[in-house]
Amino acid sequence: MPRFALLVEYDGTPFVGWQRQANGLSVQQVLEEAITAMTGEQARVQGAGRTDAGVHARGQVAHVDLARDWPPHKLRAGLNFHLKAHPVAVRAAARVADDFHARFSATARHYLYRILNRPAPPALERQRAWHVPQPLDAAIMHEAAQALVGRHDFTTFRAAQCQAASPVKTLDAIAVRRHEEELHIHVSARSFLHNQVRSITGSLKLVGQGKWTAGDLRAALQACDRAACGPVAPPWGLYLVRVDYPENPFAMLEQRGDS
Amino acid sequence: MPRFALLVEYDGTPFVGWQRQANGLSVQQVLEEAITAMTGEQARVQGAGRTDAGVHARGQVAHVDLARDWPPHKLRAGLNFHLKAHPVAVRAAARVADDFHARFSATARHYLYRILNRPAPPALERQRAWHVPQPLDAAIMHEAAQALVGRHDFTTFRAAQCQAASPVKTLDAIAVRRHEEELHIHVSARSFLHNQVRSITGSLKLVGQGKWTAGDLRAALQACDRAACGPVAPPWGLYLVRVDYPENPFAMLEQRGDS
Repeated sequence: MPRFALLVEYDGTPFVGWQRQANGLSVQQVLEEAITAMTGEQARVQGAGRTDAGVHARGQVAHVDLARDWPPHKLRAGLNFHLKAHPVAVRAAARVADDFHARFSATARHYLYRILNRPAPPALERQRAWHVPQPLDAAIMHEAAQALVGRHDFTTFRAAQCQAASPVKTLDAIAVRRHEEELHIHVSARSFLHNQVRSITGSLKLVGQGKWTAGDLRAALQACDRAACGPVAPPWGLYLVRVDYPENPFAMLEQRGDS
Repeated sequence: MPRFALLVEYDGTPFVGWQRQANGLSVQQVLEEAITAMTGEQARVQGAGRTDAGVHARGQVAHVDLARDWPPHKLRAGLNFHLKAHPVAVRAAARVADDFHARFSATARHYLYRILNRPAPPALERQRAWHVPQPLDAAIMHEAAQALVGRHDFTTFRAAQCQAASPVKTLDAIAVRRHEEELHIHVSARSFLHNQVRSITGSLKLVGQGKWTAGDLRAALQACDRAACGPVAPPWGLYLVRVDYPENPFAMLEQRGDS
């Protein structure tokens, strides 16, 4: 059966998360239902990252095996037609090799956390950014965050329910930058622990407020103790922005403009 | 009575527009109700621009006279508390001179029109940008748009129901730029006719698609005939970004960081 990769954007607000669950609607479920509506097939969609309830994606990647060898642009257009009722869009579809796996072939995942840092609450960015009214110092947050780069035991920044075999992960890069009223935290790694970005963001916020020093953040990491983590940041500021593979499945299509 | 200027952000989606109307909820009404809830006063709020149903604002300006001389940051915080049920936020409040008038003192208004220009429909930017799936050439649109700069009879780009005394306006600047999947059209003028930005955007889209030449756009302007306008762009891509005054009422507050 031909395998397809899908580049998926969604607003996480109405969903229980990426993964199918008994207690509500997931992004995976609405994608699988759109595939059934279009092709008549009961196909299983496999995603690169299992985003939590309320977390958004600009560039989630998923793969699916279908009976028919659809022209990718027809697959994209057909799925989007059947997704109209939900804030989910297939930005691109591509035919990939049978050994391409959205989750296990991924070499890096890139997340963005948006903080709206101003006294007034959001009107246009409700459910799109975390509102922190106290002034945050992005430069100090950026500098402190560099202590997290590299290979570490991230037990402090890991949800209690995390199912990863090991708490040891390698953080490739983290950057905190101000863009007018917003702070953007960009984080990259091959893979992440459950709630890792939101846990790091919650602790960095304390650094930005001056409640923690850079040394406090280092000490929290070294404690390898969940109790040492600051309050976890809410899901609605988090975006899965991009997933990298040895070869970008969507590169050719994007260049040809027919994705 | 002390006069206050308010810097207002809103998501226009649930509103009939800025101005109070019998047929539904307006931004003006929810602001006036928040003022009543906070102060007990029946005050009239006067806005700089009467945005249509569905049109957004990042920097609408309004003024209001109140009995009490509120510290501006308390007025801002109190109004935001009472605005919680609506996607409207007061970004800043400032005490202004009695002759400050949000509408008549304004020296320039700046609008942004966002086009999501990709095959896939929006998921994260639903009701926040106009989806145009056909490829648009931003450079050609930008060049053609320069013919609109200056003092012209804009009858072609004016809604039939426009109440302005004259169709002659001076467009100070217009710029069309691509930002990845989005086209941003920035337009500035002292004042605008009803639907002027959306009418211009709808015609520029035809230029970007290659259906109109730059000469066709010039001819449409010179025709001074509403029938010569391209299909008007929808309201949900339009943002009132900033209003200028001889003195920026919010400049001092922003510098002091206590707005």
